[in-house]
Amino acid sequence: MITRLSEVECRRVIQAGRIARLGCIVDREPYIVPLNYNSEDNCVYSHSLAGLKIKALRRNPRACVQVDEIESDLCWRSVLAYGNFEEIITPNQRKEVLGKLLKRFPMLTPVESSIAEDGSSLQVIVFRIKLDRMTGVSEG
Amino acid sequence: MITRLSEVECRRVIQAGRIARLGCIVDREPYIVPLNYNSEDNCVYSHSLAGLKIKALRRNPRACVQVDEIESDLCWRSVLAYGNFEEIITPNQRKEVLGKLLKRFPMLTPVESSIAEDGSSLQVIVFRIKLDRMTGVSEG
Repeated sequence: MITRLSEVECRRVIQAGRIARLGCIVDREPYIVPLNYNSEDNCVYSHSLAGLKIKALRRNPRACVQVDEIESDLCWRSVLAYGNFEEIITPNQRKEVLGKLLKRFPMLTPVESSIAEDGSSLQVIVFRIKLDRMTGVSEG
Repeated sequence: MITRLSEVECRRVIQAGRIARLGCIVDREPYIVPLNYNSEDNCVYSHSLAGLKIKALRRNPRACVQVDEIESDLCWRSVLAYGNFEEIITPNQRKEVLGKLLKRFPMLTPVESSIAEDGSSLQVIVFRIKLDRMTGVSEG
């Protein structure tokens, strides 16, 4: 039996997760990419090299992030949260966000680690999805 | 280092996977839902109760399916395949598709099992995404 999750439970799933699927619209088609992230203050923070998804999100910032906890085919929770893509460009903020990502994902590459030290390289795009709506369902 | 997957490797990932994230566009927003599926003949087959995603896909059939194999933060493969949503409505075809899904996912509910026996109940939407383009990347 599938039941709806409360907003509190949705937030718990998003905060606990490590991999989200980020959805956006590219040339009128849906687009999905897996994403390591950190969530706080009702935002999902992540980073990316410049590429298709960043180009698309700059043009159309509407995005969604789907996070799930799948224990088996019949025991799972899935949350879908919507929000707008916002680039983080000031060095101090970039440093803070990358620092927290690095702490959560210590396996990030040495390049990213060194960027995190001063937040200055603009090759890495640092961004957040500012969430404004979420729904969730669970089974089992 | 992130590298591009060949089409053969993309197909292998999709055929081997059990959970895809299905993406579509709902009211000009991206939408993602996890999906158990079976893949053959360049299609992804699945089923669903009527609801938001089915309503949206009937209106705009363009969809994507993202399938990944994630071993660690630095060792993963992810494939994104695009295609059109097509409902399967003839009882024989429905029976065949549901039968294969049931074989792959024996934990499907008794309701679905009984539907699979004759494929006749229209409460369960049976559909395929007919893939026409795919890309994949891997790391590690």
